[in-house]
Amino acid sequence: MSRLRVTVWNEYLHEVENDLVHAVYPDGIHAEVASAVTERVDAQVTTATLREPENGLPQDVLDATDVLFWWGHKAHAEVADEVVERVHKAVMGGMGLVVLHSAHVSKVFKRVLGTTGWLRWREADEKERLWNLQPSHPLLEGVPEQFELEQEEMYGERFDIPEPDELLLISWFQGGEVFRSLCTWRRGHGRVVYFRPGHEAYPTYRNPHVRRILANAATYAARRVTVEIGRPIQVEALEPVPNPSKEHVG
Amino acid sequence: MSRLRVTVWNEYLHEVENDLVHAVYPDGIHAEVASAVTERVDAQVTTATLREPENGLPQDVLDATDVLFWWGHKAHAEVADEVVERVHKAVMGGMGLVVLHSAHVSKVFKRVLGTTGWLRWREADEKERLWNLQPSHPLLEGVPEQFELEQEEMYGERFDIPEPDELLLISWFQGGEVFRSLCTWRRGHGRVVYFRPGHEAYPTYRNPHVRRILANAATYAARRVTVEIGRPIQVEALEPVPNPSKEHVG
Amino acid sequence: MSRLRVTVWNEYLHEVENDLVHAVYPDGIHAEVASAVTERVDAQVTTATLREPENGLPQDVLDATDVLFWWGHKAHAEVADEVVERVHKAVMGGMGLVVLHSAHVSKVFKRVLGTTGWLRWREADEKERLWNLQPSHPLLEGVPEQFELEQEEMYGERFDIPEPDELLLISWFQGGEVFRSLCTWRRGHGRVVYFRPGHEAYPTYRNPHVRRILANAATYAARRVTVEIGRPIQVEALEPVPNPSKEHVG
Amino acid sequence: MSRLRVTVWNEYLHEVENDLVHAVYPDGIHAEVASAVTERVDAQVTTATLREPENGLPQDVLDATDVLFWWGHKAHAEVADEVVERVHKAVMGGMGLVVLHSAHVSKVFKRVLGTTGWLRWREADEKERLWNLQPSHPLLEGVPEQFELEQEEMYGERFDIPEPDELLLISWFQGGEVFRSLCTWRRGHGRVVYFRPGHEAYPTYRNPHVRRILANAATYAARRVTVEIGRPIQVEALEPVPNPSKEHVG
Repeated sequence: MSRLRVTVWNEYLHEVENDLVHAVYPDGIHAEVASAVTERVDAQVTTATLREPENGLPQDVLDATDVLFWWGHKAHAEVADEVVERVHKAVMGGMGLVVLHSAHVSKVFKRVLGTTGWLRWREADEKERLWNLQPSHPLLEGVPEQFELEQEEMYGERFDIPEPDELLLISWFQGGEVFRSLCTWRRGHGRVVYFRPGHEAYPTYRNPHVRRILANAATYAARRVTVEIGRPIQVEALEPVPNPSKEHVG
Repeated sequence: MSRLRVTVWNEYLHEVENDLVHAVYPDGIHAEVASAVTERVDAQVTTATLREPENGLPQDVLDATDVLFWWGHKAHAEVADEVVERVHKAVMGGMGLVVLHSAHVSKVFKRVLGTTGWLRWREADEKERLWNLQPSHPLLEGVPEQFELEQEEMYGERFDIPEPDELLLISWFQGGEVFRSLCTWRRGHGRVVYFRPGHEAYPTYRNPHVRRILANAATYAARRVTVEIGRPIQVEALEPVPNPSKEHVG
Repeated sequence: MSRLRVTVWNEYLHEVENDLVHAVYPDGIHAEVASAVTERVDAQVTTATLREPENGLPQDVLDATDVLFWWGHKAHAEVADEVVERVHKAVMGGMGLVVLHSAHVSKVFKRVLGTTGWLRWREADEKERLWNLQPSHPLLEGVPEQFELEQEEMYGERFDIPEPDELLLISWFQGGEVFRSLCTWRRGHGRVVYFRPGHEAYPTYRNPHVRRILANAATYAARRVTVEIGRPIQVEALEPVPNPSKEHVG
Repeated sequence: MSRLRVTVWNEYLHEVENDLVHAVYPDGIHAEVASAVTERVDAQVTTATLREPENGLPQDVLDATDVLFWWGHKAHAEVADEVVERVHKAVMGGMGLVVLHSAHVSKVFKRVLGTTGWLRWREADEKERLWNLQPSHPLLEGVPEQFELEQEEMYGERFDIPEPDELLLISWFQGGEVFRSLCTWRRGHGRVVYFRPGHEAYPTYRNPHVRRILANAATYAARRVTVEIGRPIQVEALEPVPNPSKEHVG
């Protein structure tokens, strides 16, 4: 197999507009996510951000991407609809998509899953503990039975998503909520992953378990085929049929 | 429970534009589907068609609908995007949606599921046989182990849909293909059903087994709650947290 | 439909051997569960206990049961293997099975699902809060977004079960764990439900939300068909085949 | 990762008792399956058969197995119950299990899934065509959109299995039936695969697509962890609880 091609997309606004966030992620969340992948996976990792032309995702970038990571929060509306359609089509055709944290209401996530991404939230510097439901799953390779994040934003159920194909982590929050924090779905020919933690004001993406999961996601969701899904196609019969040359009625 | 409110939506173009289709469904496919429901279910059934104002689906109609049936084929593009969004929101909020036959590439189906609905197709007057995978499922109450449709359009795999929550019928086609013909998914607070048969040129909606499934679908997918899903909401902690009055960072 | 026939099976040892448990459930857990069903559902409810002949479940009792509730804890081994096989066969044939609390390692539950039911546990008078993932599901009709049980035994993940067909409640525990507390699976022609709460030392089965779910489970899991699943059957072809009268080889 | 360890188990009776089957598989079905794996996968493959001591599967063999293939037909009852329990425990602990063809009613398959494996069958030298639902799935790497087997035994729905975690191939049969022919389930820490084709009287295991799937299954289902699942364990609280040293009640 040729070398894995990863693109990490980030809104990249908090880090330049807010001193506290800048102190946590001086090079941007995308740089931190990229480094988590490269420290474990032999991949060619590039980054893209919102305010670049075409939101950093022209067609040729997607064509050369096996997995796309997506972090966004306050400017979901700024992502152009044609970019959203382009990403959707790429996923249908085989590209992996790893949706992070507040991108649960990004246009891309909602477009691919069809649901609203609704949830409850709170920022209170509280503890999150993530429980491992499938230690044998490739996404959780090297991840212990549970791990803690001392301070995170809370996301609570009901999380409005389709029933996941695989539910891999459930979070416990100090303030009393629970959350499905690591989920996968197959959509079209692509694999979609949602991974909850990662508020911009906490150094979550430097946690070793979180980094491990990011690296695992890069290989797990990687493109395995490239298919152009166009319009439904008319086909010849493989066995005898009564009226093989019938004209289309309607 | 109050009386079930069903709306049957139909494109209603083939039946007025094509003599052959008109002969099969003189009052429109919507009338035939509606009669299949009313002959078994105590429901208030109304119909709506594409070329009515707002495509026949103004907000008050959806607000008064527990299950929406949807048949469309050649004019998917004519359905207004705001109507599609309205239907999507209604499903998220609890309305049932029963998608029929060629609506596998309707805007509504693609919006709710997020996939392309791609498949193979052929018109050749061929035989379809539908195999019952779950005789104990409410959607298949009264339906035998298998039943045949002497002539139908063929739809063949790979059908580009999310893995169904429930796979209930698989079709065998004379020409050599197979198809997942009755599937369900929960999306938001609503139940979505896809049911394959129903080409406009064959009297499929007069088949007693098909009619039975239509009636079963009305009760199975019926709205059970009405919820307005808006933006994610900020909530107070239910248990002590370190920083309950923290200001939002970001 | 004829009247629903419910059988509530209980080990019925703690209540007669332990004063504290006796004080909580003087008539036995089975009586409390039965009353939760009858207060909402028009059903004919009978009870059966471990130390009755054939563990209270001779064939004619199962033949006349639409849903079987099962509570056991300390004497799983006392349930006769032939009774376990009988219950398994009844579920395959269409009987519903509602497995409660510590029956997660009952012979019946393990036989039907094939997994071990492994989990973590602790008794510490701690709080459990159950989060509602699907308010529109029949099992959760009338159940709020979350509800609390002031004192319960803790069960924590990883719960060794097959991926549920439907995951409906997730529990938060004061001591730091989470748990998939309301799950369903279809097995054979029967519907299986697991519902976590119900330690013998707490009055959990008098909680109104718990009682509501028990009543909902009776109707949701109820038998819809009665099928005898025997050996695979040899069938004639429905379409022409090359060698219709071929003798079995092997 | 160390080298993959594969064990191919075969009943190995037809091949020695029946001339026709002997002519097709002179070295036994196990040898053919083993060769399909080794021609693509760098694995250490051993075989085991029914009439060896402990049915060829003493504990140390399972302890040294990452994936177990299983072919059986006429002598399921000869497999010792303790061997079945041993295999079940190995799967729970992380070993992969690939169940082939007529092993749909093997003790091992029924023990792991909990269902009956019921289906319809017929031997008539008829054609089977297998449709690929997920070309991007690792099990179907290199497998085309569909492929044909000129002569096979027919297996028809309803196949009595739990809803698969993944449904990957559906078969069309000349005689009019359909079948879910490639399915996966996670059970315990192990991955279970069922793959339909493989009647003893046809050279199916020499078909290149079938061989490809066998090889893919070896890597896909391979053990990723080794866990001893014993009795549920009592754990200390991770957060303060009201009564941490409470004695067990009941």
